[in-house]
Amino acid sequence: MADTLADLAAQLRIDSIRCTTAAGSGHPSSSMSAADILAVLFQKYLRFDFQQPRAPNNDRFVLSKGHACPVLYSAFKAAGAIDDKELMSLRKFGSRLEGHPNPHVLPLVDVATGSLGQGLAIGVGMALTARLDRLPFRTYVLMGDSETAEGSVWEAFDKASHYKLDNLCAIIDMNRLGQSTQTELGWNGEAYAARVRAFGWHAITLDGHDLDAIDRALAEAQSKQGQPTCLICKTEKGHGSSLIANQDGWHGKPLPEDKARDAIQELGGERHMRIDVKKPDALRPSGQDTAAPLKLPTYEVGQKEATRKAYGDALLALGNARPDVVALDAEVSNSTYSDEFRKAHPERYFEMYIAEQNMVSSAVGMAVLGKRAFVSTFAAFLSRAYDQIRMASISNATLHLCGSHAGVSIGEDGPSQMALEDLSMMRAVGGSTVLYPSDANQTAKLLAQVVECQGITYLRSTREKTPVLYPASEEFPIGGCKVLRRSDQDVATVVAAGITLHEALKAWAMLKEEGVAVRVIDLYSVKPVDAKTLREAARETHGRLIVVEDHWAEGGLADAVLEAFTGERQRLPSVVRLAVTKQPGSGKPAELLNAAGIDAEHIVESVTSFVEDVTRDTDGQGKPQEEAWGHPHA
Amino acid sequence: MADTLADLAAQLRIDSIRCTTAAGSGHPSSSMSAADILAVLFQKYLRFDFQQPRAPNNDRFVLSKGHACPVLYSAFKAAGAIDDKELMSLRKFGSRLEGHPNPHVLPLVDVATGSLGQGLAIGVGMALTARLDRLPFRTYVLMGDSETAEGSVWEAFDKASHYKLDNLCAIIDMNRLGQSTQTELGWNGEAYAARVRAFGWHAITLDGHDLDAIDRALAEAQSKQGQPTCLICKTEKGHGSSLIANQDGWHGKPLPEDKARDAIQELGGERHMRIDVKKPDALRPSGQDTAAPLKLPTYEVGQKEATRKAYGDALLALGNARPDVVALDAEVSNSTYSDEFRKAHPERYFEMYIAEQNMVSSAVGMAVLGKRAFVSTFAAFLSRAYDQIRMASISNATLHLCGSHAGVSIGEDGPSQMALEDLSMMRAVGGSTVLYPSDANQTAKLLAQVVECQGITYLRSTREKTPVLYPASEEFPIGGCKVLRRSDQDVATVVAAGITLHEALKAWAMLKEEGVAVRVIDLYSVKPVDAKTLREAARETHGRLIVVEDHWAEGGLADAVLEAFTGERQRLPSVVRLAVTKQPGSGKPAELLNAAGIDAEHIVESVTSFVEDVTRDTDGQGKPQEEAWGHPHA
Repeated sequence: MADTLADLAAQLRIDSIRCTTAAGSGHPSSSMSAADILAVLFQKYLRFDFQQPRAPNNDRFVLSKGHACPVLYSAFKAAGAIDDKELMSLRKFGSRLEGHPNPHVLPLVDVATGSLGQGLAIGVGMALTARLDRLPFRTYVLMGDSETAEGSVWEAFDKASHYKLDNLCAIIDMNRLGQSTQTELGWNGEAYAARVRAFGWHAITLDGHDLDAIDRALAEAQSKQGQPTCLICKTEKGHGSSLIANQDGWHGKPLPEDKARDAIQELGGERHMRIDVKKPDALRPSGQDTAAPLKLPTYEVGQKEATRKAYGDALLALGNARPDVVALDAEVSNSTYSDEFRKAHPERYFEMYIAEQNMVSSAVGMAVLGKRAFVSTFAAFLSRAYDQIRMASISNATLHLCGSHAGVSIGEDGPSQMALEDLSMMRAVGGSTVLYPSDANQTAKLLAQVVECQGITYLRSTREKTPVLYPASEEFPIGGCKVLRRSDQDVATVVAAGITLHEALKAWAMLKEEGVAVRVIDLYSVKPVDAKTLREAARETHGRLIVVEDHWAEGGLADAVLEAFTGERQRLPSVVRLAVTKQPGSGKPAELLNAAGIDAEHIVESVTSFVEDVTRDTDGQGKPQEEAWGHPHA
Repeated sequence: MADTLADLAAQLRIDSIRCTTAAGSGHPSSSMSAADILAVLFQKYLRFDFQQPRAPNNDRFVLSKGHACPVLYSAFKAAGAIDDKELMSLRKFGSRLEGHPNPHVLPLVDVATGSLGQGLAIGVGMALTARLDRLPFRTYVLMGDSETAEGSVWEAFDKASHYKLDNLCAIIDMNRLGQSTQTELGWNGEAYAARVRAFGWHAITLDGHDLDAIDRALAEAQSKQGQPTCLICKTEKGHGSSLIANQDGWHGKPLPEDKARDAIQELGGERHMRIDVKKPDALRPSGQDTAAPLKLPTYEVGQKEATRKAYGDALLALGNARPDVVALDAEVSNSTYSDEFRKAHPERYFEMYIAEQNMVSSAVGMAVLGKRAFVSTFAAFLSRAYDQIRMASISNATLHLCGSHAGVSIGEDGPSQMALEDLSMMRAVGGSTVLYPSDANQTAKLLAQVVECQGITYLRSTREKTPVLYPASEEFPIGGCKVLRRSDQDVATVVAAGITLHEALKAWAMLKEEGVAVRVIDLYSVKPVDAKTLREAARETHGRLIVVEDHWAEGGLADAVLEAFTGERQRLPSVVRLAVTKQPGSGKPAELLNAAGIDAEHIVESVTSFVEDVTRDTDGQGKPQEEAWGHPHA
């Protein structure tokens, strides 16, 4: 066995060299330090059915140091999951073997890695899922030593011990060298061990090139009860090649062809052995809870309710209906109202304390194993986890985010608690869905659709209680909008969502008093946006749109509206933005909406000035004067 | 003294109750737990000139648990820096005393806090500044226990010990109760101490309501050499009021008036004592390095150079010219090229390892003490610190961010390393400046202006080498753009920046071959945007714009362009977006630009189709058919 393992480890090193040299880029040295660890893990410990990568009882392996994927792909080859030809396609256009693991194209991996420090938190989510579903699989996370500088790693260490995840094993490949310099702790394994132990883990320091030591440590981890285990493996970057082993200047560099030949020879020459990775026991816990009909909460029109409360009510309803729904919150569940779910379904609620990064990554770990994960905190604090959200999208994960307390309308707490960039942030996530409901029934109806969506969804909720506008029977398709006020005399369209919609309706009433009719659109679906209705409104209201949003002027509602008017055959209307343009302070919500220029008074002013202004410039027929575009030559 | 301190502590509690009850909101209980700590600190240790809050030798005090600001404001009142009337204006519209500390309005605080877990990292930056400037001031950071769940806190603990910051003192107000539940570690002070010690700190556990114990611990911290010290103070939330002390359900809740009266009486009744906070020694280190003339790097037109390299060259030049320039990087200085600065000015370069959150917050700590801080990493990984960047803007800090390796054009490393949301993210930062240069000379000229900018600046640099387009003599004002190709026959305008500008120029040449003339604009200043030139181009090229960007379609260049065409008197042109719309993979830069539809070939296609399409729809005079906007009634 030891010989086989040594042979396998040599092959993993050789293949890591071969495929990166063929690619002309990549990270052979970071792969080679981890080869012995992967050899023992894949040969003796991992239970994984490569024919069914998502089988519920597979062990999970997360390569947190994603740049070392050559050694992982090499292990996949050794396991027969890919062939040598595919291995040699590394990093080439169209290959499933990207420069960092990506489940969009390679279903053998569960998640995308490459932004460091996220793997352990994902592993926490997977280990929690195993426990929730009473499945015996284990989760292994291979980390680099450099990435332990990321705070997200310590959030994950903390949560794993808090939840006593003895089905989770972290392995630190302590190869001493970072990209540009030695790591802070170098080869001081005891320093890592002290930190890990202080964070509640069982820690084992060992020689990461000693196959027996790795074997013993993995066995010890497997038998440890009530506590997760971390292996701190002292390794050499580039181990096995005298040219690059433990040398500076070889991070992220393939060996030139001649040097690669020498190194392969030094490692005993190319070989193509196969290993049989054990399959997990074919079990599926019986007696699964089954779904119940969804009974959404309903609210009376005119009743005052906060959309954050409706989120909590609807999340509870989803949880009652679907056993695959889980909820995570960053210690503000009594503000986001996810505490309703917590009280009703404590086993499916995960208190993530004030650690948003770990919360999002753990939710990704749950999501890729089939859970419908709802993640909530103040919208402003989701910015703490933007990298994790970005990576969740690359992981092809389906994740349901809810941010409460958005905008200046939160009032007295002041700007640190006001999300004013969340719509921009979430719109710029690949494939995302962005929703901003204005009333309680709408919130519930949207959440019922969210649970059916793929990808990253974001729902922005409001702190303040606002009147219920829609009957409980109303439907709100994602990608739609509501024309709430319309007449044949509308001189302009006011587009709003969430809190500003209520201001728009007040403005409509004030303008009506003055005999001015405006159209009012509730743009609850910010992405995708209802281009058809917006275009129709522009056509019917003289091409005049006023977009009102409780958000910075950049990247939010107005930019979403403008999407509807871009494209080859589109001509843009006149658009006025009422948005937050200077740092807000503390005060009553109404004072702050007014100070930001996004309340009813300012909408009225804007409509009046806009219409007067355009009328003044007309050609006498009441048609807005158009820019004198030059005449095309073609 | 002990009596005075006890009186003072009682007054801080009483005032925290009074001002929050008057405000009708706020956090008295979280303030009361920290009152003894603040009493001792302000009376005996802090050296601070309230007449000159930014005096270079003032001790710094960072209230990381910003929601406890009532106790800080109460201490300001005791110190005579504000009066009781102002204290009672807490959280009211227009008051300097916001719900969380905000230096925009209150210069007595250096930074905004309220997003938890950022104060210690800011303190690290301040302590590093003290060391750099050889100033004897000390930095104190008061943290909540809940916020130690944030990974950013551990990044800061790590960096502080790495840099042996014995001028930094962290104080954890371990009051056991979070917002909705008990903290993970409760009153387990030894657990905190073990973590803090494992991260290289001197730790002292103590009773946070024992004035003598606090005094002794602060003295011990002051005398500790070579290591930062953390006080872990066991406290009660709401200490001093039998109604709320150590009780659940009192987070962020003011006492009703009658209960407030009872509590104040229990605390010995309202009082208005004054303390004299000691001033620091009036010193200013002499022999300050003086500025030298700026000698920017220059590049030959046609030479190939990456803008990331030009960033490194120009940063070095700025560092040579200005002694107040400091640089921080997250262990990728050999990729961002900040390593040029590191080699030349090692004392002003701070290796922050792979911990972007701490990097940004520490830079804020340096910036508010007068440094010009340049912060670099891969653009994608700045998303890790978005909350910190958001808070930096609320802190009114001037911070210069550079993100390298933007967009699909980085090639083989794949999507985890590709920033595709950075422009959106940075545009939505209050008061930010966003730049995206396309050549080396432009990069250098922009960086020379950046150092004079206030607020958050962001410069996006490119991995690939691209031809130098502009002579070194060319000027590039922020807020401007360059019309690189123009003729009277231009049928459309192509707007690009950075890597896509080079594609636009190729497209221009290809179209020219076919006899089609287009205008090409280099929109290097994404925010602010050159509305005048864009409008002029629209007017002169038949209102046809094609915007090409290596970024998601949302929130980036195209949305910036559309800003130029919004506003009352604007009529918008036809805008086509060429942007990234599906998840990219690995491959050669050219392959990925092509696959994303943002290379020269796609620009040519778009121009052709756009022009044909519009021509087909013309009214016979070659003028694009306009939307049939309805006629205004008014």
